[in-house]
Amino acid sequence: MSGDGRPIGVFDSGMGGLTVLRALAARLPRERFVYLGDTARLPYGTKSAETVQAYALQATRLLVGEGVKMVVVACNTASAVALYVLQEAWDPVPVIGVIEPGARAGVAATKNRRIAVIATEGTVKGGAYARAIRRLMGDAHVVQQPCQVFVALAEEGWAESPATLAAAKHYLEPLFDGADAPDTLVLGCTHFPVLASTIRRTVGAAIALVDSAETTAAAVEEALAANGLALGPEQPVQGPAIRFFATDAPERFARVGAIFLGREIDEGAVELVDLRKA
Amino acid sequence: MSGDGRPIGVFDSGMGGLTVLRALAARLPRERFVYLGDTARLPYGTKSAETVQAYALQATRLLVGEGVKMVVVACNTASAVALYVLQEAWDPVPVIGVIEPGARAGVAATKNRRIAVIATEGTVKGGAYARAIRRLMGDAHVVQQPCQVFVALAEEGWAESPATLAAAKHYLEPLFDGADAPDTLVLGCTHFPVLASTIRRTVGAAIALVDSAETTAAAVEEALAANGLALGPEQPVQGPAIRFFATDAPERFARVGAIFLGREIDEGAVELVDLRKA
Repeated sequence: MSGDGRPIGVFDSGMGGLTVLRALAARLPRERFVYLGDTARLPYGTKSAETVQAYALQATRLLVGEGVKMVVVACNTASAVALYVLQEAWDPVPVIGVIEPGARAGVAATKNRRIAVIATEGTVKGGAYARAIRRLMGDAHVVQQPCQVFVALAEEGWAESPATLAAAKHYLEPLFDGADAPDTLVLGCTHFPVLASTIRRTVGAAIALVDSAETTAAAVEEALAANGLALGPEQPVQGPAIRFFATDAPERFARVGAIFLGREIDEGAVELVDLRKA
Repeated sequence: MSGDGRPIGVFDSGMGGLTVLRALAARLPRERFVYLGDTARLPYGTKSAETVQAYALQATRLLVGEGVKMVVVACNTASAVALYVLQEAWDPVPVIGVIEPGARAGVAATKNRRIAVIATEGTVKGGAYARAIRRLMGDAHVVQQPCQVFVALAEEGWAESPATLAAAKHYLEPLFDGADAPDTLVLGCTHFPVLASTIRRTVGAAIALVDSAETTAAAVEEALAANGLALGPEQPVQGPAIRFFATDAPERFARVGAIFLGREIDEGAVELVDLRKA
């Protein structure tokens, strides 16, 4: 078997998932990717589980229609509330979320069995990280904090601004106060790696920061191998490495997306799609 | 003619328009209101004009179906890009936006003919405030600044937090720097009145702040009278004063909405509606 040359599909409510794509492309440089940002309906983090499930099904239908060999749900909210729905819908195409890898990395990092998770309101409310962590470490103490303002700060590209530092102090200092404080912080939203330097500055050097983009990329590599979907070493890489789809405002996708992807995105390369017709 | 007892419809992408509803209810305490927040698809401020027009048409169709006598578009983005579409669609029901009243109040307030407008990315990009102001004052100098992080800060209820002050300094200080600085600042997003005290602290006492919620309420009162739609003095007020509709997450609508409305909203009183079926 010479490996599977089909692209990997990556889906997010918007541009935050590009931090996951960035980690994937770095780890799997020979793979091709199709990225879909549902920018017409972002953010998912403040929407109900039923609505996010319906949107995620429509979005991933497009990726499956593009012939991807695997779907990566690069959105914590959608991973939290829609992963099983998507896995069932697209079987046998494997669907990988970001929650499980993040929980696994958090459990591996903690020494005092106390883990803090910061995320959107929707992810915190659903409690998926706490459940995933306790499945792996039954007596883990998990504290969760929604950090909704971080999303806007990351989209503005304010990685190290005074406003970001003030917001970080507001959200994070109470979490790490006291002798029983967690020793590990899971960045449970794909937007948050953009703010990692300010978050690090706020919580101090002793806290382990878990970036679910990195850990998801490792999980995808593992799942490709386990499912016989990895590219063979002799397989040539064809065509452009990444295709971008957005459901609205390609200009903003390209501009804000560059913050998350860590490199320029050509606006003309972002294809506009209408999921309501998908 | 004894006046028109039908309710007034108020529409926004989410909860920000509740600042307009608050001003309307204070100015017109005998009127009934139907408020619709399109929370399943918020925010509109980062979406394209075509998408916002489509969403605004669906949303206002629900209000017209509820038998409102007037539609208030309590959303700057929708007012900026969809007002004429809505006026044409629902004629003869009058449709009032927030841009024109805000522009009128800005022009009335300025002495040096220099006006700053802060708004969402979508409103700024569309340029509707600048056009509306120049229609009224041809030689007005208008500077516009998108303040996307303000939206998240207002939704978090951080009226006077250090993060809000830092963001305000970042966005506003460059606008009011120098001898040719504007003397007037239009709050061109319905979220921003929540942050008025911090904005005031940042720009100083000499700058006129224009809150489009107040000015829109005055415009609605005027339009009711001009169209023979005002309640007669003898007309009894019937039923609950305000009905709330949301397209998603009534719990969050009630919780965050209270920040904007300035009083508690009972979650059970928020009716969930699906506009895709409207």
